[in-house]
Amino acid sequence: MRVVIAPNALKGSLTALDAARAIARGVNTVDRTIEVVSVPIADGGDGTTSVLCAVRGGVIRETIVPDPLGRPVRASFGLLDEGRTAVLDVASASGLALLAEHERDPLLASSRGTGKLLSTALDTGVERVIIGVGGSATIDGGAGLLAALGVGLLDDSGTPIASGGAGLARLARIDLSRVHPALARVQLRAACDVDCPLLGPQGAAQLFGPQKGATPEGVNELERNLEHFAQSIASATGRDVRSVVSGGAAGGIGGGLLGVLGATLEPGIDLVLEAVGFEQALQGADLVITAEGQLDRQSLRNKGPCGVGRWAKRRGVPVVVLAGGIADDVGPADFPDFAGMFSICRRPMLLEEAMREAAPLLELTTESVLHAFLHRHRARAG
Amino acid sequence: MRVVIAPNALKGSLTALDAARAIARGVNTVDRTIEVVSVPIADGGDGTTSVLCAVRGGVIRETIVPDPLGRPVRASFGLLDEGRTAVLDVASASGLALLAEHERDPLLASSRGTGKLLSTALDTGVERVIIGVGGSATIDGGAGLLAALGVGLLDDSGTPIASGGAGLARLARIDLSRVHPALARVQLRAACDVDCPLLGPQGAAQLFGPQKGATPEGVNELERNLEHFAQSIASATGRDVRSVVSGGAAGGIGGGLLGVLGATLEPGIDLVLEAVGFEQALQGADLVITAEGQLDRQSLRNKGPCGVGRWAKRRGVPVVVLAGGIADDVGPADFPDFAGMFSICRRPMLLEEAMREAAPLLELTTESVLHAFLHRHRARAG
Repeated sequence: MRVVIAPNALKGSLTALDAARAIARGVNTVDRTIEVVSVPIADGGDGTTSVLCAVRGGVIRETIVPDPLGRPVRASFGLLDEGRTAVLDVASASGLALLAEHERDPLLASSRGTGKLLSTALDTGVERVIIGVGGSATIDGGAGLLAALGVGLLDDSGTPIASGGAGLARLARIDLSRVHPALARVQLRAACDVDCPLLGPQGAAQLFGPQKGATPEGVNELERNLEHFAQSIASATGRDVRSVVSGGAAGGIGGGLLGVLGATLEPGIDLVLEAVGFEQALQGADLVITAEGQLDRQSLRNKGPCGVGRWAKRRGVPVVVLAGGIADDVGPADFPDFAGMFSICRRPMLLEEAMREAAPLLELTTESVLHAFLHRHRARAG
Repeated sequence: MRVVIAPNALKGSLTALDAARAIARGVNTVDRTIEVVSVPIADGGDGTTSVLCAVRGGVIRETIVPDPLGRPVRASFGLLDEGRTAVLDVASASGLALLAEHERDPLLASSRGTGKLLSTALDTGVERVIIGVGGSATIDGGAGLLAALGVGLLDDSGTPIASGGAGLARLARIDLSRVHPALARVQLRAACDVDCPLLGPQGAAQLFGPQKGATPEGVNELERNLEHFAQSIASATGRDVRSVVSGGAAGGIGGGLLGVLGATLEPGIDLVLEAVGFEQALQGADLVITAEGQLDRQSLRNKGPCGVGRWAKRRGVPVVVLAGGIADDVGPADFPDFAGMFSICRRPMLLEEAMREAAPLLELTTESVLHAFLHRHRARAG
């Protein structure tokens, strides 16, 4: 019997690695002889780098870069494949979690720190870069990131525009003559945590602006500026990023990376599953256990467990998903790839308790679910 | 595909019948073509009569009898098999739920109302009586019940003793010369909700006295009086009820019924499962879904779902149990007969919400569990 453990982080309580450990304990409690394969996952948001480094045996490098408001912050990137691949998260240098509630303002927040981080990674001589595009505090279309890599974003007097989503309004010209030389040869893959486009009601400004601190007027201003940025990109590179899938990821960093630097935009979960060797892990597997903090309508948009479900289904391996909570408006019919969908709440309890006790609850629920699975499995074999 | 639905009541929120309806809705949401067989269950406690009447098409009769403190209360019994079988619950006339918290006092509380109810049932000419022995407010060894059926419980001056657990201290002689004539020919089966003996640390006074309102001194007095009652019974009938299984059910009514009237004491769940035709329901079944309010150490003592698990296991039909809550100290290893054990709490929530929303939560959880089961079932078939 072989069980693959592939949980996402339970945001706010457990990293994907800790979740995998808790699930593994539950499996071992039921039967010590079960072969456990742990492949913690991420979907492009915070944690992508740590998961890839853990699974692939990478090393973490730290450096000081500007945070979304320009203050110094310690950020990190990972080096895999003996230094040939760099992996970094937008959230590390430019994440929403770096700002206090009252500091959130996407008109001012800049992705420059991520650009500095990427620049440092490029300086190590890597051949490939995987960048987790999600969880940003910014809606600057990646302008700060691009500027930090040498892309000239100039106003009509040839002066660099101000940073943040507001600065884009003055953009008159994009100068690509001084970009970081490594970008000409490095393969750049963006692991996007959402599939939303740059513009429109499902876009970076309108859908995510409010939670990043934008007022309704701010959202309108950001929408206009991103539209203007997209036109400028089209003029400079011939690439139309206005409606491309995931162009709106991380406040438009997706669109900026594709439009200006020619990066490929990929569903974060698929890129991560490929990078952690999920396909190989599935070989000969009898069951996959995945996990997520909250299963809701948003989880349907290609978040971690759904990707796991899709991949495992192709191989005919049943997948059970364990969740901190399941929203009232979703049922199993919404998640047809899952063989089962269970909450870690074994009894009435407060959210605080569920989050504080997430590890033991995950362990106990794994025990119950695996017990049920084995009951069927043995019935089938016997 | 045939699914048997056999839930216990979820005490305080859903009757067994309502629980069965909620589960059936969940099954039908997943697949309308599944054949559903509903056999709500009970284990000898409150609800035994209503479940048997519902499943067997009995009629309910109501009558006014004394409550545990002698006040009039409307109580009911059921008639099955065209009037040949009566079924009644001790809880109906003598239940703990009939008293306010401050009224609870097993030294005074009497089971006389249940005796009156049984007497009325006997007057209809039944051949068999099933009596649900559980949930009583009393610890009188069934003395009140027996007195109401004509058993003389006399002090040394030949006067009937006072009612309640305290009165037993004066018992000098048991006179069986004027018992209800029907008792000579009627088969009397006691469906006991617990297996505890009459006396000792697991007995009627020591284990259940405190929750019925007895003080520590009261518990000692009750223990002495039950011991004395058992000796009196042995002298009068030759039956030793001191350590008989379920002798302590319903404050010793189990012991009194067996010792004085020769009733059979049976595990309530087994008697009910037999009476509702559970064995036949299992024929050709692919899955059983049972339910209970709380799964804990006490549930291990032959409560409803455990009986369901035992019976279904003999037939090789997998059983899934759904619970309002699962106690932290029990795991699947404690319930080896269950193929799965799941809480209806899909997310963090308060007990009040779980109880108020028990029906929709039960329906949704059924949907999830059945979906998981079908996934396996189809994988097995395909």
